[in-house]
Amino acid sequence: MREHEFIDWIVAQTKLDPATVPVGPGDDCAVVRFGSSDVLVTTDQVLDGVHFRLSEHGPRAAGRKAMARNLSDVAAMAAIPTAAVATVSLPRGMDRRDVEDIYRGLRSVGDAFQCPVVGGDVGSWDGPLAISVTLLARRAGVTGGIAPILRSGAKPGNALCVTGSLGGAWRTAHHLEFTPRIAEAICLAMNYGVKAMIDLSDGLATDLGHLCRASRVGAEVLAEAVPVSPAASELTANPAAALHAALCDGEDYELLFALPSRLARKLCDAQPLPVPVTRIGRFVAGDEITLVHGDGRREGLAGGWEHTT
Amino acid sequence: MREHEFIDWIVAQTKLDPATVPVGPGDDCAVVRFGSSDVLVTTDQVLDGVHFRLSEHGPRAAGRKAMARNLSDVAAMAAIPTAAVATVSLPRGMDRRDVEDIYRGLRSVGDAFQCPVVGGDVGSWDGPLAISVTLLARRAGVTGGIAPILRSGAKPGNALCVTGSLGGAWRTAHHLEFTPRIAEAICLAMNYGVKAMIDLSDGLATDLGHLCRASRVGAEVLAEAVPVSPAASELTANPAAALHAALCDGEDYELLFALPSRLARKLCDAQPLPVPVTRIGRFVAGDEITLVHGDGRREGLAGGWEHTT
Repeated sequence: MREHEFIDWIVAQTKLDPATVPVGPGDDCAVVRFGSSDVLVTTDQVLDGVHFRLSEHGPRAAGRKAMARNLSDVAAMAAIPTAAVATVSLPRGMDRRDVEDIYRGLRSVGDAFQCPVVGGDVGSWDGPLAISVTLLARRAGVTGGIAPILRSGAKPGNALCVTGSLGGAWRTAHHLEFTPRIAEAICLAMNYGVKAMIDLSDGLATDLGHLCRASRVGAEVLAEAVPVSPAASELTANPAAALHAALCDGEDYELLFALPSRLARKLCDAQPLPVPVTRIGRFVAGDEITLVHGDGRREGLAGGWEHTT
Repeated sequence: MREHEFIDWIVAQTKLDPATVPVGPGDDCAVVRFGSSDVLVTTDQVLDGVHFRLSEHGPRAAGRKAMARNLSDVAAMAAIPTAAVATVSLPRGMDRRDVEDIYRGLRSVGDAFQCPVVGGDVGSWDGPLAISVTLLARRAGVTGGIAPILRSGAKPGNALCVTGSLGGAWRTAHHLEFTPRIAEAICLAMNYGVKAMIDLSDGLATDLGHLCRASRVGAEVLAEAVPVSPAASELTANPAAALHAALCDGEDYELLFALPSRLARKLCDAQPLPVPVTRIGRFVAGDEITLVHGDGRREGLAGGWEHTT
C-alpha cells in the first residue's frame, strides 16, 4: 500500500463542511474554524527502527525529532506553532530518566518556537518506543493576516525554489537535529507571494510530486541548480549519485515552494533568510515532472503523479 | 513509575501563560486560546495487548476504542468534539483492508458525534498496532457559554454523583462499545451546576483520587449506593467482590462529578438523562477518601491522594 493512495482513499471517504473545516486531510496541516479563528492541526509519529534507533540515538533525540517533524509541517503552512500534545508508548521497564529525556527532547525544540506541551498520555507495553505528536498552530501576520499556504496553489509559470541543501540527512545527525523553517516560511509568505509550499520529508522527487498533484500542474527541475548538501557530495565521487541523493534521500526538512517568477528573482538576489534559497526550476502545465540536465537531456522524475491516481 | 507522578513532574516543568493556555497538563483536556475562542485539546492512545487485543477484537474495534476514549475525555469537560487527527503504527505487512477497518472504527463513533477525522499519519514498523488520537473540541452552550468543567472545582459539601453502572467492563464488550457521555455531560453542565468532573477510565477509586487531588478535598463514598454493573454482579456471588470490581476495574467511561447537594437531589429525582444518575457520596474537607459501609464501618479507599504527593 502506498501512503498517498491510502490518503486518497481517506479523502474520498470524507465529506467535510468547508465552513468548519476549510482544509481537510492531504495537506501538511488541516485547518479547523473555531469562532472567527483558524486553528491549524497536524500530527506525525516517530517509530523506533523507522525514524530513529533508540539504542543508537537515545530517547532525547527521539523526542526532539517527534516535535521537530511536526513543527516542519507547521512551517510548510507558514503558520505559528501554538501548543503540542504527545502520546508515548514505552517499552516495558524503560527507565524513568529515559522517559524524562523524551519529554526534554520534545521541549528542547518546542521551547525554541514558543510551543508548549499542554497534554499527553504515556503507556507501557511490550512493543518498541513510539512517539506521536499533534501540534496546534495559528495564522501568521498582523492580526493573522497570512492565510495558510497550501500545496494546491502552484500555477504554470511559477518558479520552483527550495531552502538549504539536500541529501544525505540520514547519514548525518541532520535528520535528528534540523531546525524547522518556521521563521523562514513566514518571511517567505509575508514578502514573496508564495503560492504553494511543502516541507521535504520524503525527498524532493516525492514531495514535488505531492505539490504538483495537489496543484494539478507539472514541473521542470534543472539538475544543475539542485543544491546538493555536503553530506551527499562527500558520500560519492560520482556527481550523478550525489544528485540522486539530493533528489531522493528525504528527511531534509527544507521548504519547497512556488512563487511568481519575478518575486523568485527578487528573493534569490536578496537572499534575506539565514538559509540560502535556490531557484531550481519552474511549474508547467500538464502532469509531468521532468529533470532537465545541463546538456539538455530530459528524464522523468520519480514522483510524477499521473500514474498514481 | 506511577503515571500521576510523571504528570506531576511534567506539570512542575511547565510554565504556561494562562492568557494563551488557561488549562495545561493534568486535566482531561487542555484549553488553548485562539483569538477569542477556547480550543480544547486531548490525546490518548490504544496499544495492542494493553487496551485491546488485535487478534481477538479486530482492527475496527481498536479504531473505535481509540476515538471513543478521547471523546470520553471531551465529555469530562462538558465540551463539544469538533475534529480529530490520528496516527497509526501498523505491524509490517498488515492488510490494506484491515487498515481501512481501523479508519472505519475511528469514523463509526466520530461520525456519531459530528467529529470528522481531518488528518493523520500511517506508518509501518516491526512493532504492534498502536493508534493515537487527538481531539479538538469547543465550548458548549449558547455562543459557547459553558466554561469547560475542570477536575479542580469540587468543594466540601458538594454531592458526588456518577452516571451508569460500574465494573466488569473488560469482561464484556463494554470497553470497546461504550458510548461516550458527551450529550449527558453538556446537559449536566447546563442545568445542574456541575463543579468538577472526570470520566471513569482507571476505575472509580483511582479517578476519584484524581478529582479529589485536583480539588484538594476528600470524599466519602457510600458503599451501598455504588451502582454495580450486571457484568460485575454476575461475576461473583460475593457482593464485596462485585463492589470491588465496581470501584476498581476501570474502563467504565461513565462520568463522575461534583455538584451542589440541592441540585444533586433535583437531578436524581428528575433522572433526565438516558442513563441513570446515582448519588454515591459527598466531598469533605481534608485529603481522605473513605468508603462508608452500610453498618457504619469505614475504610480508606485506594486512590486517596495524600500519600502520593
